[in-house]
Amino acid sequence: MTPLVAEPVPGLPEIGAGDDLAALIAGAGVPIGARDVVVVSQKAVSKAEGRVVRLADVAPGPEARSLAERLGKEPELMQLVLDESVEVLRAERGILIVRTRHGLVCANAGVDRSNVPGSGSACLLPLDPDASARRLRAALPGRPAVVIADSFGRAWRLGQADVAIGCAGLAPLDDRRGSADHEGRILEASVDAIADQAASAAALVRDKAGREAAAIVRGLDRFVTDDDGPGAAAIIRPRAEDLFT
Amino acid sequence: MTPLVAEPVPGLPEIGAGDDLAALIAGAGVPIGARDVVVVSQKAVSKAEGRVVRLADVAPGPEARSLAERLGKEPELMQLVLDESVEVLRAERGILIVRTRHGLVCANAGVDRSNVPGSGSACLLPLDPDASARRLRAALPGRPAVVIADSFGRAWRLGQADVAIGCAGLAPLDDRRGSADHEGRILEASVDAIADQAASAAALVRDKAGREAAAIVRGLDRFVTDDDGPGAAAIIRPRAEDLFT
Repeated sequence: MTPLVAEPVPGLPEIGAGDDLAALIAGAGVPIGARDVVVVSQKAVSKAEGRVVRLADVAPGPEARSLAERLGKEPELMQLVLDESVEVLRAERGILIVRTRHGLVCANAGVDRSNVPGSGSACLLPLDPDASARRLRAALPGRPAVVIADSFGRAWRLGQADVAIGCAGLAPLDDRRGSADHEGRILEASVDAIADQAASAAALVRDKAGREAAAIVRGLDRFVTDDDGPGAAAIIRPRAEDLFT
Repeated sequence: MTPLVAEPVPGLPEIGAGDDLAALIAGAGVPIGARDVVVVSQKAVSKAEGRVVRLADVAPGPEARSLAERLGKEPELMQLVLDESVEVLRAERGILIVRTRHGLVCANAGVDRSNVPGSGSACLLPLDPDASARRLRAALPGRPAVVIADSFGRAWRLGQADVAIGCAGLAPLDDRRGSADHEGRILEASVDAIADQAASAAALVRDKAGREAAAIVRGLDRFVTDDDGPGAAAIIRPRAEDLFT
């Protein structure tokens, strides 16, 4: 099997609304092959798509005010999180876990104040991260696979790991159920989270405190597809199978 | 930043109790540097440590029989899972989620029947995966970092991602809380799961249906430590902070 290589895309500028992210990544001097995976940070995509909101422009309602008081957060930020969410799952000890409109279970609906220009602004997740990934793919020379990555906490483990909130041209899951192991025994619980693990590999080379908004992951050719595929929406566990909320 | 490279260690034989796993990995022909991370599958480590049990040798008790009936599983397997667990968290729809003696929250306490020689046997997690990692590290030429990886499901996402259940010589978490983003804003939720993401990167190059029990991950020098460090035990979220069980 070929090695996996993850290489950061250096020198990207601060991204603003309307910027051509595909052109910036393609012009950064890192070669991108048609079977490579371009992993782009959610924040860069959101900024390019203008998904940055000034807190001063948000009018918090009663639920947001109540959450803010309970959690010690800004009411305007809580309103933004509620606007992005379909369900509040946990709100305690300063932590707010929700299900977003996309179906993602994460803290603060992905609304984030770090690395956002202007101290009074917050960045929201893309409206449709799979559509964002498809657009980026179509715009990148050679049409490589694209993953849009965000850092998620985990229920029972400390630290954040990057996952794919959007993807195009990459099989998000590798389903080997029904195939046999090397003893001939049928594999039961063998679906591999390819896109999430590609996002995690890329996270290890992106300096998230800085501006490295993208990385190229090579060696996943066997999971790269000609069509855009089902996207990262296919990774979301159906609510009916959720054992923990 | 240097690229990340993950390379499988090919040609390892089927591992049996008492095998010198470090010597097998060191002799496989893949160069291993002192600042590399050797990611080894839990199953290879468990087999080398003799953590394989014949189901015929297990006497299931009443709780195991009841779980087996409820979940449609073998009573002997359920007994093994209970023996490895401190708490059953969920047991429904054929799924058994427990907290293991190590504090890991996972399906079936990591007890697994795939790729175990002999159709009537199951493989248990190492007794102390951090100690296993430290022993492997000490035995490998150059004393590289070691991660012991297992594939875990996730509460709200489909597919399994590899995580570190043991490690030595690698910072399991990179805590950047209190540092500033590039706008000078203090980062709040910024602890990166380094060892887990290294395990995930390695998973993308290991053919889990086959025998690729190990991979070398290069480019994480800045997280490799001279001392063995706190191990993967440091990744486990304290029960007092668990919002979901």
